[in-house]
Amino acid sequence: MKKKKIVVIGGGTGTFTILSGLKKYKNLDLSVIVSMMDDGGSNRVIRDEFGLLPTSDLRQCMVALASKDSDETLRKLFTYRYSNGVGISGMTFGNLFMAALTDIYKGDQKKAIEETCEILGVSGRVVPVTFDKVHLVATYENGKQVLGEHDIDEPDAKQGKYKITNLEVIPKAGVNGDAIKVIREADFIILGPGDFYTSVLPNVVIDDVAGEIKKAKGKLLFVMNLMTKFGQTAGFATSDFLNEVEKYIGRRPDFVLVNNSKKFPTGVLKKYKSENAEPVRDDLEDGKMKIIRRQLISNKVYQKPQSDTLVRSLIRHDSEKLAKAVVDLL
Amino acid sequence: MKKKKIVVIGGGTGTFTILSGLKKYKNLDLSVIVSMMDDGGSNRVIRDEFGLLPTSDLRQCMVALASKDSDETLRKLFTYRYSNGVGISGMTFGNLFMAALTDIYKGDQKKAIEETCEILGVSGRVVPVTFDKVHLVATYENGKQVLGEHDIDEPDAKQGKYKITNLEVIPKAGVNGDAIKVIREADFIILGPGDFYTSVLPNVVIDDVAGEIKKAKGKLLFVMNLMTKFGQTAGFATSDFLNEVEKYIGRRPDFVLVNNSKKFPTGVLKKYKSENAEPVRDDLEDGKMKIIRRQLISNKVYQKPQSDTLVRSLIRHDSEKLAKAVVDLL
Repeated sequence: MKKKKIVVIGGGTGTFTILSGLKKYKNLDLSVIVSMMDDGGSNRVIRDEFGLLPTSDLRQCMVALASKDSDETLRKLFTYRYSNGVGISGMTFGNLFMAALTDIYKGDQKKAIEETCEILGVSGRVVPVTFDKVHLVATYENGKQVLGEHDIDEPDAKQGKYKITNLEVIPKAGVNGDAIKVIREADFIILGPGDFYTSVLPNVVIDDVAGEIKKAKGKLLFVMNLMTKFGQTAGFATSDFLNEVEKYIGRRPDFVLVNNSKKFPTGVLKKYKSENAEPVRDDLEDGKMKIIRRQLISNKVYQKPQSDTLVRSLIRHDSEKLAKAVVDLL
Repeated sequence: MKKKKIVVIGGGTGTFTILSGLKKYKNLDLSVIVSMMDDGGSNRVIRDEFGLLPTSDLRQCMVALASKDSDETLRKLFTYRYSNGVGISGMTFGNLFMAALTDIYKGDQKKAIEETCEILGVSGRVVPVTFDKVHLVATYENGKQVLGEHDIDEPDAKQGKYKITNLEVIPKAGVNGDAIKVIREADFIILGPGDFYTSVLPNVVIDDVAGEIKKAKGKLLFVMNLMTKFGQTAGFATSDFLNEVEKYIGRRPDFVLVNNSKKFPTGVLKKYKSENAEPVRDDLEDGKMKIIRRQLISNKVYQKPQSDTLVRSLIRHDSEKLAKAVVDLL
C-alpha cells in the first residue's frame, strides 16, 4: 500500500509531541517543516556568536523522528542542556553539535542537518522552512512593533496585553525549495500544535508557504492549542485561532482537532492563571469544517530543568492520543 | 593464532600517532593506558567548571582506535575545536561531548568513556590510569616546585632552564585496576613517544604502575622522542631519557626505538631552535638493550589551528613507520 504523505508544519515542543506519536505508524511518510526564527537562550548564542541558523527546533524534530534502533546515548545527548561551565551553561548539546558540524562542512548547514539525521537514523524529512537568517517582526494593535522570536514569545507586561495584528520576517527570506515540494506532494498538511505566532505561523509567513498551502491538494488539519498564551493568544477562543489561520493562509482548514477534556492536572491551571493563560475556550460550530473533539491532554506535567531559562508550557498534548486522532482522519 | 597483547602507555599526540599505526595490524590486541593530568585549555574548563576528569588525552586515544567503519562525521567531530562563541571558543567537541555524557550518567565517567568507545566503534581498551582527580607536581634541580601539567609543559623562561629532579602527583591517587590488569597480561609494553614528563611519566608515577611494569612478563619498549623540549628535556641525549626511565621504573627497557633520519622538513629546526629545542642527540651504545635505529619522521609538518592556544610539536613520528618498527619486534 502506498504510504500516506503527511507534512507537519511547526517547530518547538508541540511539533515534537505530534511527530513522536505519528512516527509509530509505519504506513506514514512523514515530513516536517520547521521555523528557523528562534533567538532565545542557546539559539541566541548560535545566531550571534556563531553566525548560524538556530537549530533547537530542528533538533527537537530530529530527536522525535530518530529511529528507536539508533544509539540511545546519542538521542539522550541531543536533548541534553548543560548546567555547568561559564559560557556553556544553558547551551544545548544539540546546538553545539550542529555548530561544530556546520563548521566542519564549511558553513553548509544543509549538509550538517543531513549528516545529523543520518547519525540519528531519522525516518522522514526534516525541512527548515528557509536557510536565510531572518527575524520575526510582530506588529500589535497599538501600533508597536517587536523584533525577534524571543521577545515576542516573552513580552513585557504592558505590551503583552495587545493582540498581534501582523506577523512577518525581516529581511525578506527565500523559501527552502524542499518545503514547497513536501507541501505540494502531501496528502495531509498539519498545522500545530505549538506557540501560534512563534512556532506555527513563522513558517506560513515565508513566501510563498501560505500560497502553496492554499492551493495544495492535501487536506489541511489544524491542531488547536490546549492553552492560551499571554502576549500571543490571550483570550483566544478556538474561532480566533481559525480566523487567524484563514487570514494568513487564505484557506480554512478541512479539519480541526480540539481537546475536550477538562481534567487538567491539579494546580496547573492556577499556575497558568498567574501567567494570564487559560484553557482555550471552544466556541466552534460545526458546518464549514469537520471538528473532532477528543481527550488529548497528557497526564504528565512538564518539569523544567533549572538551567533552562525560557518559559515553557506545563500542560502538553498526549502524543499517542494526538497521533491516533490524526490517523483516524486519514 | 593468538593475538599479541600490546599496551601503550602515554597520552597526547605521540600516543595518538603510534595507536593509529598499530590499529591497522589485525593480529594485535591493543590497550592504552592514558594519563589524566591535563589541565590546559579545554581541560582546565572541564576540571574547574565541570569538576570532571580531563578527557583530551582519552579522546585522542579513542579517535585513534575508532573503527574505520564508524561514522566518519563522528570521528571528525571528536577532533573538532570550536573557534566561535564566548566561553566556547577553544573548547573541544570531544570534551563537551564527554562532559554531557558524564552528567547524563550522573557523574560516572567510566560509563561515559565506555559509551563513547561504543559510539566510535573503538577496537581495544582505553584505560585511564586513575579515576582520581590529581595534579602533577614537578620539582626542579633548583628546588622549586611547579604544580599542574600545563605549567610544567609551558614553563617560564627562567624556570624552564632547570632539570626536573622529581615528578609526582597530589593528592596521592588510586590506580585504575584495569591498568594493572593490562600491564600484567601484556606481551609488549610500549612507553612513548610523547611529552616525557607530562604525558608518559605521569602514568608511571601513579602507584604502583612503575612496580607493575618492573615485574611484568611483557617486553618493555621505549620509543625515543624526536625532539627535546624546553622545560622538560632540554639538552637530553637518548641516554638521558633511558636513565630517567630506569630511575622511575627500576627497569631498563628491552628495546629502544630511535629515529636516525636527519632529514627534517625545511625551516622547522630553526623554529624549534627559537624554542630552545633540538633533535635528540643519539649517544646510545649497544649492549644492555637492543637499539633499533630507523627513519621514523613524518613528512608532514603539523599546522596548528588558531583557536588552539597550546604549544604543540611540529615534527611528528610517521605512524606507519613507527607501527612497522614495533611489529617487526614482536
